[in-house]
Amino acid sequence: MTTENIERWDIFELILNGPAAGNPFIEVTFGAKFAYKHRVIDVDGFYDGDGTYIVRFMPDSEGEWTYTTRSNVAALDGKTGTFTCTPAAAGNHGPVRVRDTYHFVYEDGTPHFSVGTTCYAWNHQGNALEEQTLETLKTAPFNKLRMCVFPKHYTFNQNEPPYHAFEPLPSPGRKGAGGEVQVWDFTRFNPAFFRHLERRVGNLRDLGIEADMILFHPYDRWGYSTMPAEVDDRYLRYVVARLAAYRNVWWSMANEFDLMQAKTEQDWDRFFQIVQESDPYQHLRSVHNCRGFYDHNKPWVTHCSIQRHDLTQVTEWRRLYHKPVVVDECCYEGNIPNNWGNITAQEMTHRFWEGFSRGGYVGHGETYVHPEDILWWSKGGVLHGDSPARIAFLREIMEEGPAINPRGIYGDLTQSAGPDDAYRLIYFGINRPAYKDIELPVEGEYTLEIIDTWEMTITPLDGTFSGKCRVGLPGKPYIALRIIKI
Amino acid sequence: MTTENIERWDIFELILNGPAAGNPFIEVTFGAKFAYKHRVIDVDGFYDGDGTYIVRFMPDSEGEWTYTTRSNVAALDGKTGTFTCTPAAAGNHGPVRVRDTYHFVYEDGTPHFSVGTTCYAWNHQGNALEEQTLETLKTAPFNKLRMCVFPKHYTFNQNEPPYHAFEPLPSPGRKGAGGEVQVWDFTRFNPAFFRHLERRVGNLRDLGIEADMILFHPYDRWGYSTMPAEVDDRYLRYVVARLAAYRNVWWSMANEFDLMQAKTEQDWDRFFQIVQESDPYQHLRSVHNCRGFYDHNKPWVTHCSIQRHDLTQVTEWRRLYHKPVVVDECCYEGNIPNNWGNITAQEMTHRFWEGFSRGGYVGHGETYVHPEDILWWSKGGVLHGDSPARIAFLREIMEEGPAINPRGIYGDLTQSAGPDDAYRLIYFGINRPAYKDIELPVEGEYTLEIIDTWEMTITPLDGTFSGKCRVGLPGKPYIALRIIKI
Repeated sequence: MTTENIERWDIFELILNGPAAGNPFIEVTFGAKFAYKHRVIDVDGFYDGDGTYIVRFMPDSEGEWTYTTRSNVAALDGKTGTFTCTPAAAGNHGPVRVRDTYHFVYEDGTPHFSVGTTCYAWNHQGNALEEQTLETLKTAPFNKLRMCVFPKHYTFNQNEPPYHAFEPLPSPGRKGAGGEVQVWDFTRFNPAFFRHLERRVGNLRDLGIEADMILFHPYDRWGYSTMPAEVDDRYLRYVVARLAAYRNVWWSMANEFDLMQAKTEQDWDRFFQIVQESDPYQHLRSVHNCRGFYDHNKPWVTHCSIQRHDLTQVTEWRRLYHKPVVVDECCYEGNIPNNWGNITAQEMTHRFWEGFSRGGYVGHGETYVHPEDILWWSKGGVLHGDSPARIAFLREIMEEGPAINPRGIYGDLTQSAGPDDAYRLIYFGINRPAYKDIELPVEGEYTLEIIDTWEMTITPLDGTFSGKCRVGLPGKPYIALRIIKI
Repeated sequence: MTTENIERWDIFELILNGPAAGNPFIEVTFGAKFAYKHRVIDVDGFYDGDGTYIVRFMPDSEGEWTYTTRSNVAALDGKTGTFTCTPAAAGNHGPVRVRDTYHFVYEDGTPHFSVGTTCYAWNHQGNALEEQTLETLKTAPFNKLRMCVFPKHYTFNQNEPPYHAFEPLPSPGRKGAGGEVQVWDFTRFNPAFFRHLERRVGNLRDLGIEADMILFHPYDRWGYSTMPAEVDDRYLRYVVARLAAYRNVWWSMANEFDLMQAKTEQDWDRFFQIVQESDPYQHLRSVHNCRGFYDHNKPWVTHCSIQRHDLTQVTEWRRLYHKPVVVDECCYEGNIPNNWGNITAQEMTHRFWEGFSRGGYVGHGETYVHPEDILWWSKGGVLHGDSPARIAFLREIMEEGPAINPRGIYGDLTQSAGPDDAYRLIYFGINRPAYKDIELPVEGEYTLEIIDTWEMTITPLDGTFSGKCRVGLPGKPYIALRIIKI
């Protein structure tokens, strides 16, 4: 008997055959305990249809692991085995965690500067468009993508998805006036739906992109937003059992949770708690608002996921929540009639810089009018805008520097610094001073660079600087000043 | 004896000789009752130095007026006379009043759309620069100008003014470390100071510009911001006695009143009440904030005078105060290091449109770095920026239309309309939809015009419109749509 090798933070998968009769989704319990030295981790498995039972596991430590299955069915119970966890390959940094209160880090210690985009329903568009989206993402600057488990019904989103999450009722079911109401057997998941979802999450992982999985959303004509509580809960446990072993998963309880009339605050608390209890790896958890915020101070929230257009508020949200602030939605670059989807590339770039220089992280989206209603924000496809190139430029600057925590010592400036005053970044935004008087520590020498965030140029100033300096500036908007100790 | 002719809303002036000994500013009371048919208006006069006593009066009704002086000095008491008030000449529309809760009107019924600028200390710069400022104002788009009675000490404002409001003490007085503290005889006004001030207010009147007279301000090295209460009060009565007869005067209790540490809210209440009681013509009264607002709901406040950069709040201030909203300071076009003084011409123009389309009025200012520190915002001179031309374009559009009161029927649009849906103005701001679906009343035909607020073009769409329409738009920022019923 050979021992299988599994890369650290990759997926070990145990597949067993068991009963297909009755309703295994409801009637069969299945899982396994994974053991490493002194540690034992109990993980739920899931039924994948056709008598197939699967349990997945993401090992976080190199070496020998053993497992023992558990089930209320003899054929699935007490099976044991081992595998070897090998070192992570290049590009595999593990799941993303919170670091230093306001920031992110991969589990291997590599900083993660979150640079997100939004393709809410890209995974419900059929293979041709989905493959094109992946092709686009290969060269795009994004390392996180917001996407919905369920398909989306909304303006510009009228198409029927290829898969649904539940089996239709065998009877014809009730139909609405437009014939659009389908009645589902909420006790039977559709494994094909979830296998497709997993494939797409894996595709993103292979591109180094975190999948910010939106578990519920209000844009719905199929009934996913108004399921009974016990269905919601079973769905959450099922999706966690299937997806949690993917290292690039983040959990977003909902998009615009406050628009979901059928749910109460207690429901959202319970959803968080179910995900928290079920996920063996404690992936990041948040919930995204439309208007009012969920209370991000609640202990199960790992970071703020915010919709607002005024990025100057990042400063206040950091004070208020003491967690990483991710403004996933700050309006989209585009030209659709809706004001949330027609800002310029300049404005989008500015919002990224404003949020970043205040110690937060900002999400991109794109909504250009398209003859076939293929808008990146929801369906993916190709990017048409001018902000992604600038976001790529910003990402390089992010990744060259330390985590940004704002300081107020320069008065009305958005001024940020790394530890020990060794790194400062001042972003002037829409303001355009002709010069600025700054004061550096008298001990130490500093280099100064003028960054044109729109033209994507970095211009070093001649010489080195310390103490009081008058710095000439281009006198145009969207300029930053980078100050690095030699 | 001939009867003098005085144009309606112009100044009748009676000059008498009286005692010069002692301190007439304190010891002599002087005024006159002006009578027209059934009405009698009691007006304070003032001592102008050298034994000269003056009382001024602005008649508001055409026909015969009589007057009788009153004084505690026999030589000034009981003098009588008459004059004839003749029709106002072209261009003389009388003082500005509030109309329809949120707007302004000249007393002759001509609407006044407030388009202000800021030259805080232009009247303290000496004649050469002051005359240049007046020359600039001849062709500038502004019909209101904020200016300080007292000289200004501030960044870019270090020069000594030609005149001071009080006589220096005959003794050498105390001097501060820098020799800059002058001790004044606060019981003796300097008439030359006030005559110069009046001349400049009259110059503005002759250009059709309202003088928004700032009575106190905190930028001071001479002691004007920390005078004893009885001096403040006497000063207010004196300046009202001298200036109230100028039809173009507005009273601004202070600039950035909240930065004047020596004054309490009760002081500001009392100042308002003194001006309200003393001014026979009830010119407009307000007070300008830095951070927190004075309570504009107080009954002696005729309109809001606001410093804030976010013009979307105009909507809220109208709801809160039910008075005209004038955002006198929303940052200045320029390039100085201070963020309140380095926005672009585009941003200044945008703020004018944002405030106007929400039913408010916005003030301009300009702060470009200048080799001799001559910045328009404080000293006047010439204009260097690109926003005044756009503000002139907006003023034409304002004056062609009705008063703007925002309506919410178009969702996320800033949408404004005159009475009877006969006029609508939709301003898209930084948003840039490629098209917009609008709904017009089905009865009636409307013309649509695309206004490019930056390029200053008005492009009529072919044909006429009613009911539901999809309107193609340029897909760039700073566009407005004007809809007029035929």
